[in-house]
Amino acid sequence: MAKKNAFYAQSGGVTAVINASACGLIETARKHKDIIGKVYAGRNGIIGALTEDLIDTSKESAKAIAALRHTPSGAFGSCRYKLKGLEENKAQYERLIEVFKAHNIGYFFYNGGGDSADTCLKVSQLSEKLGYPIQAIHVPKTVDNDLPITDTCPGFGSVAKYIAVSTREASFDVASMAKTSTKVFVLEVMGRHAGWIAAAGGLASDADCELPIVILFPEVTFNQEKFLAKVDELVKKFGYCSVVVSEGVKSADGKFLADQGLKDAFGHAQLGGVAPVVANIVREGLGLKYHWGVADYLQRAARHIASKTDVDQAYAMGKAAVEYALKGHNAVMPTIERLSDAPYKWKVGMAPLAKVANVEKMMPKNFITKDGFGITEKCRAYLAPLIKGEDYPPYKNGLPSYVRLKNVAVAKKLEEEFKV
Amino acid sequence: MAKKNAFYAQSGGVTAVINASACGLIETARKHKDIIGKVYAGRNGIIGALTEDLIDTSKESAKAIAALRHTPSGAFGSCRYKLKGLEENKAQYERLIEVFKAHNIGYFFYNGGGDSADTCLKVSQLSEKLGYPIQAIHVPKTVDNDLPITDTCPGFGSVAKYIAVSTREASFDVASMAKTSTKVFVLEVMGRHAGWIAAAGGLASDADCELPIVILFPEVTFNQEKFLAKVDELVKKFGYCSVVVSEGVKSADGKFLADQGLKDAFGHAQLGGVAPVVANIVREGLGLKYHWGVADYLQRAARHIASKTDVDQAYAMGKAAVEYALKGHNAVMPTIERLSDAPYKWKVGMAPLAKVANVEKMMPKNFITKDGFGITEKCRAYLAPLIKGEDYPPYKNGLPSYVRLKNVAVAKKLEEEFKV
Repeated sequence: MAKKNAFYAQSGGVTAVINASACGLIETARKHKDIIGKVYAGRNGIIGALTEDLIDTSKESAKAIAALRHTPSGAFGSCRYKLKGLEENKAQYERLIEVFKAHNIGYFFYNGGGDSADTCLKVSQLSEKLGYPIQAIHVPKTVDNDLPITDTCPGFGSVAKYIAVSTREASFDVASMAKTSTKVFVLEVMGRHAGWIAAAGGLASDADCELPIVILFPEVTFNQEKFLAKVDELVKKFGYCSVVVSEGVKSADGKFLADQGLKDAFGHAQLGGVAPVVANIVREGLGLKYHWGVADYLQRAARHIASKTDVDQAYAMGKAAVEYALKGHNAVMPTIERLSDAPYKWKVGMAPLAKVANVEKMMPKNFITKDGFGITEKCRAYLAPLIKGEDYPPYKNGLPSYVRLKNVAVAKKLEEEFKV
Repeated sequence: MAKKNAFYAQSGGVTAVINASACGLIETARKHKDIIGKVYAGRNGIIGALTEDLIDTSKESAKAIAALRHTPSGAFGSCRYKLKGLEENKAQYERLIEVFKAHNIGYFFYNGGGDSADTCLKVSQLSEKLGYPIQAIHVPKTVDNDLPITDTCPGFGSVAKYIAVSTREASFDVASMAKTSTKVFVLEVMGRHAGWIAAAGGLASDADCELPIVILFPEVTFNQEKFLAKVDELVKKFGYCSVVVSEGVKSADGKFLADQGLKDAFGHAQLGGVAPVVANIVREGLGLKYHWGVADYLQRAARHIASKTDVDQAYAMGKAAVEYALKGHNAVMPTIERLSDAPYKWKVGMAPLAKVANVEKMMPKNFITKDGFGITEKCRAYLAPLIKGEDYPPYKNGLPSYVRLKNVAVAKKLEEEFKV
């Protein structure tokens, strides 16, 4: 096997553990220097490949690479940049191959969600056509948990843990205040298409610690009357309740609930979240005092409360990607295969990219309770293991020590510049 | 010394560590059963005293009381209920004394902020007048950090740590996305009058990890032009920036920036936060893509990332309150006295309530940089020790094990009911 370099890039929204995948991948590649020369990373994702802006990860110390395991965000920069179909956009794919050829790259590792799985597949197909062999391996990553075949997606478990912990904590807070003040706390969470993250709010309440929680899923059309009745019922029973609302919740007219056409005093459109809208509905409908929060980036960046299961799986996916490459696989993605719920057991599997690309995994209907506001035992059995275990980063002066790499550029070899 | 019972109540907004003060207080009282009989807690704060709704903490196991140290929120319930002046509201104070008398209560421990320090002082004054001796000791607590004399207030250090950690994590996230997507992240934090909490956002950036952060303090009148110039400068230099905005920021007309008179599609007033307003200003003024979050209750309930310094101090304040009572003190508050910044050393002190009540400690002017958007080295030297150390709660199934007490009611002894 001729020695080839590898290319690695991070794609789309970053997570608390995507760098753990990078860590697994680079550490494993470094153990096989006889076969994989250097790992080059794309600066700002695939854009780095298109513009020949490569980072030489061999310039980073073993300690720095190890620290990626506990560092959130994308250490090499990510991007929101989708390569379109081969026909429309052949020049971009050809450019990729050209850059790979110039830098003797034989392995393409792409760390992302559904779109990047599709790109990865296309790179593999084109490399065959163009006669320049590239093994393209997709490394799964997305807080949305919407990739098919794999039991879960690295990144999701840590967001789920953050939302479950935060919902429990905020519920304790509102319970303390409810007698004379706030009775309803509304927390807005990510998830435009699927309610996986919102569902995690349901984990805050369990057999040891029952808490009144209403979940608003994007899968369930918002019904104001039923929602207010549910909140009213819980506040009457418990004195308070928490509402976990997905940003993707829609009303019967098909519009996002967040998109209420708000105008400021000058008549400018105001982009709001869904949490204040829901809070306002509670106030107007029930006259209850409320507070609301929007987790936004905090939820996916919160490495300080990452799930150990998630960190381990993210690392395993990066490691497996290299191992599959060494075994000669192409156009595949390592997956997480669940062997049992309790005790939770899993192993690394493999899926052909043709079956991953452009398939979105939605939440099963039987994961949502009949009234549409909670999670079922089936859902709990699925979610619970994913938030298990803590994996604290090291701290210095009260703050987590997250690594920032040197990110040294590889000298360019191509004369032509490429505009993206 | 005749054996007397003690009364303890939690007041105002709860924190991640107010229960650590309760833990210190109850554990210390239990060691002196020859002098302090039982500790009764007010259900929902002072309302529990007025309505004779007392909780018998002696029914709780040592293990449950110990678990208060790692449990956020107010375990006995808190309330927002301010007793007014003695003249206007004598009946309420007399009722308190009546309840204390009926239950042989000789110690009044009130765990709260400025308002409760005032109530505590008045109870002490009235007990003298009415000839029923009560030792009233105030236990400091407030995330606002605005009590005088004490170097800091338990509750603040943990919020500060949460905001510093979250700002660092979100900054790493936006840095990864900035090339093609979000360039500005706006985080709204608590602090209606003083910028202590917003200042903590400045800790996210330090010598080991420089990050571009703009802080909007309530002490500094919002100047849109200067703000946009600052964001523009940082985005040009770093590619991105984070904005930490206090909910109390006001514009030149003296109005809260959050209060933009928003109306929904039906013309209803919409209560928004300040984060979306600031984000909108960034979008309209600079055309940059943004994300925004509102930490709200999450910041003060986040026991999972509490500051060890804060937990230790909260516990010490509860313990000292009992010790001062045993020494015969009255109308006092234990305080935290700073002995040195680095290494950080502190000891427990004592302040007369007459000097605490109705005095608000503002942030010194020399804690804010000249441009109004950052913290000075003086501020950093003050804040840094307060977020030091981690004090993780125990976990079960991926979630923190927070205790919920039995909260057994004490049998009523008074015939008369009291309406609050």
